[in-house]
Formats: sequence, C-alpha cells, structure tokens
Amino acid sequence: WTCTILFLIVLSLVLLSRAEEGLEFPNFDGKDRVLDINERNYKKALRRYDLLCLFYHEPVPASKGLQKRFQMTELVLELTAQVLENKDIGFGMVDAQRDAKVAQKLGLEEVGSLYVFKDDRIIEFDGELSSDTLVEFLLDVLEDPVEIINNAMELRAFERMEEDIRLIGYFKGEDSYFQAFQEASERFQPYIKFFATFDKSVAKHLSLKMNEVNFYEPFMEEPAILPGRPLTEMDIVEFVHQHRRATLRKLRAENMFEVWEDDMDGIHIVAFAEEEDPDGYEFLEILKDVARDNTNNPYLSIVWIDPDDFPLLTTYWEKTFKVDLFRPQIGVVNVTDADSVWLDMSNDEDLPTAEDLEDWIEDVLSGRVNTEDDDEFADDPENDHYILEESDENPDTDEEDDGDD
Amino acid sequence: WTCTILFLIVLSLVLLSRAEEGLEFPNFDGKDRVLDINERNYKKALRRYDLLCLFYHEPVPASKGLQKRFQMTELVLELTAQVLENKDIGFGMVDAQRDAKVAQKLGLEEVGSLYVFKDDRIIEFDGELSSDTLVEFLLDVLEDPVEIINNAMELRAFERMEEDIRLIGYFKGEDSYFQAFQEASERFQPYIKFFATFDKSVAKHLSLKMNEVNFYEPFMEEPAILPGRPLTEMDIVEFVHQHRRATLRKLRAENMFEVWEDDMDGIHIVAFAEEEDPDGYEFLEILKDVARDNTNNPYLSIVWIDPDDFPLLTTYWEKTFKVDLFRPQIGVVNVTDADSVWLDMSNDEDLPTAEDLEDWIEDVLSGRVNTEDDDEFADDPENDHYILEESDENPDTDEEDDGDD
Repeated sequence: WTCTILFLIVLSLVLLSRAEEGLEFPNFDGKDRVLDINERNYKKALRRYDLLCLFYHEPVPASKGLQKRFQMTELVLELTAQVLENKDIGFGMVDAQRDAKVAQKLGLEEVGSLYVFKDDRIIEFDGELSSDTLVEFLLDVLEDPVEIINNAMELRAFERMEEDIRLIGYFKGEDSYFQAFQEASERFQPYIKFFATFDKSVAKHLSLKMNEVNFYEPFMEEPAILPGRPLTEMDIVEFVHQHRRATLRKLRAENMFEVWEDDMDGIHIVAFAEEEDPDGYEFLEILKDVARDNTNNPYLSIVWIDPDDFPLLTTYWEKTFKVDLFRPQIGVVNVTDADSVWLDMSNDEDLPTAEDLEDWIEDVLSGRVNTEDDDEFADDPENDHYILEESDENPDTDEEDDGDD
Repeated sequence: WTCTILFLIVLSLVLLSRAEEGLEFPNFDGKDRVLDINERNYKKALRRYDLLCLFYHEPVPASKGLQKRFQMTELVLELTAQVLENKDIGFGMVDAQRDAKVAQKLGLEEVGSLYVFKDDRIIEFDGELSSDTLVEFLLDVLEDPVEIINNAMELRAFERMEEDIRLIGYFKGEDSYFQAFQEASERFQPYIKFFATFDKSVAKHLSLKMNEVNFYEPFMEEPAILPGRPLTEMDIVEFVHQHRRATLRKLRAENMFEVWEDDMDGIHIVAFAEEEDPDGYEFLEILKDVARDNTNNPYLSIVWIDPDDFPLLTTYWEKTFKVDLFRPQIGVVNVTDADSVWLDMSNDEDLPTAEDLEDWIEDVLSGRVNTEDDDEFADDPENDHYILEESDENPDTDEEDDGDD
C-alpha cells in the first residue's frame, strides 16, 4: 500500500475561436471564486450556499513541480465554480495540516477527496476530478433526490435506464411513507437513482403495490421487491447497502474510483467491451445474459468498461494488462499490483457463449484461474488456489478451451 | 467578424491516486515529444510516421498570459503524444510567421487549426482540442477508411449507427470498383463512415445490387441510392459533398466547429434535447419524424445538441440564448452575433407535435420567425423578412400557437 499521492493531469482544452458565435467554451476569467476555508469562515460558507464543495488536500508542497500540480487542481475548481456561478454553489479548499481542526469538525476523512455539503449531508465525490465530470455531478446533486414519474413518457424513460441502479416506490402521496423513501434516497444521491409514482396506471404497469418499493439492478429485467411494507428509512437503506454491488456494473467517470475500491477480496473481474463495436455489443449481450443468470450469486460482480468512455486510459490499460482493446476482453485484475489474467479469445471468430463464460467465471471464483502466475504451486494457507501453468505474456487461462479450428 | 483568437481552457484533470492499481490516468511525464517543425525537418517528419499531426499556430505571444495559454496547447499535444506513444504518430508545431514557407509547402491554411497528414492526404481536425477528443480522433484516422461487413453481427452494428452518415457498397471483391469507393472514402475519413460488403446475404438484407452504393443520412430509415453503376471515385465524392449536410445532425466534440461553420445563410436551427431525459427523448423522436418527412428539403438542417455531451457549455448556452436547458428547446441562432429566438413551449405539459414543429420551421425558413428582433419592420432589400413583434426576454415566435389550456 502506497501512501496517497495526488496524481494529476492537464487535459487542457484549447479552443480555436472562429468568426461564428455560439460555441464558446468558458475560459477561466482569472476571478478567484474558490475560498480558502478556515476556522473563521467555514460556518458562514456552510450557511451561505445551497451546496458547498470542499477539496480536502495535503499541505501545499514545497517543490515547484508538485506546486504546479496543486495549482492545476485549483484551476479545475475555479473553472467549475465559474461555469456554475449562477447556481449557488460554494467552493473551497481545506488544508489537511493547517486546517486539521476544521476538517475534523466537518468530518473530512480522505485527503485528496472532494466533499459536497448539501443540507446536513456530506457526499463524497469519487470520480475523475475534471471540470466536466464535476459540473455534471454537482448539477445532479442540486436536483431533488426523488424523481416523480407521472406519465407513460416518464415511465418509458425509467425503463430505458438499464445501466443504473434504480429504486421505485408507489405511494399515495407525499405522506410519511414517501418521506421515509425520500430520506433514504438522500443518503445515496446522486449515485443511486430513486423514483416514486403516485399514479395508479404507472404502478400497475410496474406491478407495484401501494407503499411497495422495487429495486432494479443494472441490466436486470425483473426487479427485486423490498421485503416488508410499509418500509422505514432504515429498511430501505439497509437493503440498498446489501444490494448495491451489482452483478454487472458499468464503470463511469463520476464514480470510477469508488467502484474500483469496491473490489472482491483484492480482485475485479473486468470486461472490456465497446458498445459501438459489433463484437463488443454482442459480447455485452452475452455478459448481460450471464449476469441475469447469476444475479443471486453474491460473489460475482463484473466491472464493464467501455474503452470509448476513457480514451486516455485505453493505451495505459493495453500496456498494463497486455490486451488488445480493439476486441472485447474479460479477465481478472488484482487491484494491489494490477497483475491480470485474461480469457483467451484470440484465435477464433466466435465470441464465447454464455456457458463458456460461466465456466470461466466459476474457475475464477473457485480460484483456479487467478493472477498469481509466477508461482507454479500456490501454498498460501489462506486460500487454496491451485495455479495452472501460465506464461507471463500470454496466459493460457482457459484449460477447457476446446479448439474449434 | 472578429479576427481569429486562440481561445483556451484548462480542463485539468486531477486524479486522486489510491492504494488500488489499475485506473491510473496518464500524467505528463515531462518528456518532450512534440517537434518544432521547420524547413530542415518537415520532410523527414512526414516520411517517418504513419500519421503526422501538426498544430499551425500564431507566433508565440509576448504577453505572459497569452504565453501560458500557448503552453497549455502544447501540453494537450504532449499528453496526446505520450498516450499514443506506441502508435507511430508524430506531433509538431508550425509557427505561422517563422515557418511561413513550410506552412505554404504543406498546405496549412487556417491558423489555429490542427492538420493530420496520412499518406498523401491532409485531414483538418475541427473539434475540441482536448486530449481525449484528439486521441479518439487520431485512432479513428489510423484505421482503414472502409470497414468491411462480413456477417449478420456486423450488419446489426451498422444498422444501429443511426447518428452517423454512412455509405455502404456491395462489391465482388477488392476490384477496381471497390478501389474507387475506397479512394473516395479516404477524402472523408474519419468524418463520414464508409462500409463495404462482399457478402451476398448482407447485400440482400440491405437490398444492395452489385457495385451499388447506398447513402444513409443520419436518422433516416431508407437510404438514398447513388445514381449510376459502377461509380467512379468522383461520382461518390460529389454525391457526398452534395448530401453531407444532413436534415438532422448531432453536434459532437470531434467536429463541432466544422458543423457550426456550416451554417445556412448565417443561421442555425438548433434543437437542445437530452436523450436521457423523458421530454428530451420524446422531443428527439418528434424531430426525427420531422427530419424524415423533410429530408428532401435542401434548405432544412437542424443541429441537435445533447447538453449532456457538453457540460461546460450548458450554462454558457443558457446565458447566451436565455433558455432553460433542463427542457427541450428549439430555436434559430444567428451565428454572427449569437442572437436567437426560441419556440415557446413553456406553458404546457405537452411537447409540440410534428405538425407544430413543421409549421414553425416553415416560418423560420420563410423568414417570418427570425432573430432580428430589434427592428419593428425589416427593410432589407436582400431578404423580405417580416418581423413579428418580439420581446427580448421571451420572444413569442409562434403566432399560430393555439392555446390548449
């Protein structure tokens, strides 16, 4: 485990202005909007804004190079603040050393994280700290945590959101049951979407009974019904905590680090599939089938990454994992050292079937396929993994692979 | 018309590194990869790389502030070069003053543009000059300009690409007719997608005859068949030039400035619709219907902007156009001054019907709805626009709007 360091990139966006008007990206105007938070001003800042967004950072480093990085972080916040100027959002920096007391009072824990204060809640932002991701995130936080579905059009939109975790409840109106649901929703905003309907025909279409709450896992057609009715805030919160690690979950800029940190005993099963690509699309369909068949297996969670969403990471992944991301891939990644093994799908035209994938996943979950490829035999008493022979460069992880060529 | 200025943003992306490995964004490593192109080295650079990517810039300014912006542009290129290091792409800067001769020899025209050299072609990049957009663009340019469709899976992927302009030809094999098609494709790569098939059943599914080429406008179900068979390179090139301004076209980061510059007599009809939003989705469906009904009207082209794709521009647009982008909007924007008028859809639950939209579009095309709202009566002999009364803040542009409330 290395200590937390601030990594940083400049993704400068340069705009060639034209004679035409109407497409001008904001350019930082030099006006200082990000507050230096301290014991004297933090309470006022909390009172003053609808949202307060605080970056909790290590002390400003002495070296010039690291200072430049720090200034870049500030610039991300300044640009975000400028873009959202009319939205009543405050921005500030809290120094982990100089402002240690304030940090403690505010409940800031992870140095290098960004915390958003809304009413009496703290929301940790655990995504790419770029201005565009942050702007979207903050606009989501500003909205109501429960979205009401009033008609068939809104219902269709709800049904199209297959990539998201969604809860939906049917209530008589804004009564105490609805309020319990709303209070639960606040704890997960904006990462988990909460919907409610007061409309009988919407409820009927979703087979929802009065005061019932359904939980839709990503990519699942059938929801889980929360046990008990009516539900308390804590019933809902506990259910979400237990079920939020989906069988198939898409990696997104807005919470990529949160997902990555939520590994399973130090590993992730990672699937790369470009949705716009023919192979990628079909592979994803197969993955969804596998996820639907195994949705009740608590030990299975596949992180789906669409390389199109992360152009800057694609070559890094290709290098780190030694895979070709122009094709779909599935493998096991050890998150402590980024060591990985990948299902060999290189020599045939056909994608693996759902059964092939399930066999491979079983091998992963049983430990027969794993990343400890340097040892011939693992002798770790804590897990009785049996290591198949593997070469470093081209791990032959699929011993049951019957060549069809 | 203002002179060309270099606009710029720093979209710094700061990454909070964790103990977990596997998600590390590249951080500029300080190694200088971008060449300073001059008369002595430009030929060598052209020969050496598969792609050469040159930024044609104004002389480095004297002022510190502008120098900083210039350095940011360089950093975008450096980071792009670093990420694509193993892809055989060269990067360079050409100074419009100091390297004027080289620029002339290379055919660089627009200062502030980025030009990509591939074989004997020049491709102008006319999008957001950010590292991620540029990385994606260059990877697209590296690929073959014609994609071959061999099977039903690839055919389904082709059919899903409704947002793109696509050409597809059916050929016996890589004969001279295919080659003419391929040479035409090179002139439009990567902005217009070219596909070919040698497979009888794929051709049959698309009702393609041998040596026939079909042109799919975005969002259209039926293709246009290119007249004549077999076609020469120039037949295809001319057809694409005549038809590339689609009736409905989506604004994208990769060519946003090119689209914006391609206005219709100084205006754009702009539709804002968030595809993930219920209203936005339905409005877009209506727009597609309108576009399908009017695909043969050469005077109609609607630019569809999904605000989700441009989080940093959303508040700028809301301010400039005085519209609420949480709802779908359609309006006319004058590109010389960003003056605009918008269809009033604020007071009712229902979205306009396709007929309502067509009436409004007719009013726009006839000039009855226009942005010159300061004059009571236009007296411009060049266009006989009759100006309806309009207020600045809430232009009532839809005189036929029968209230249904």
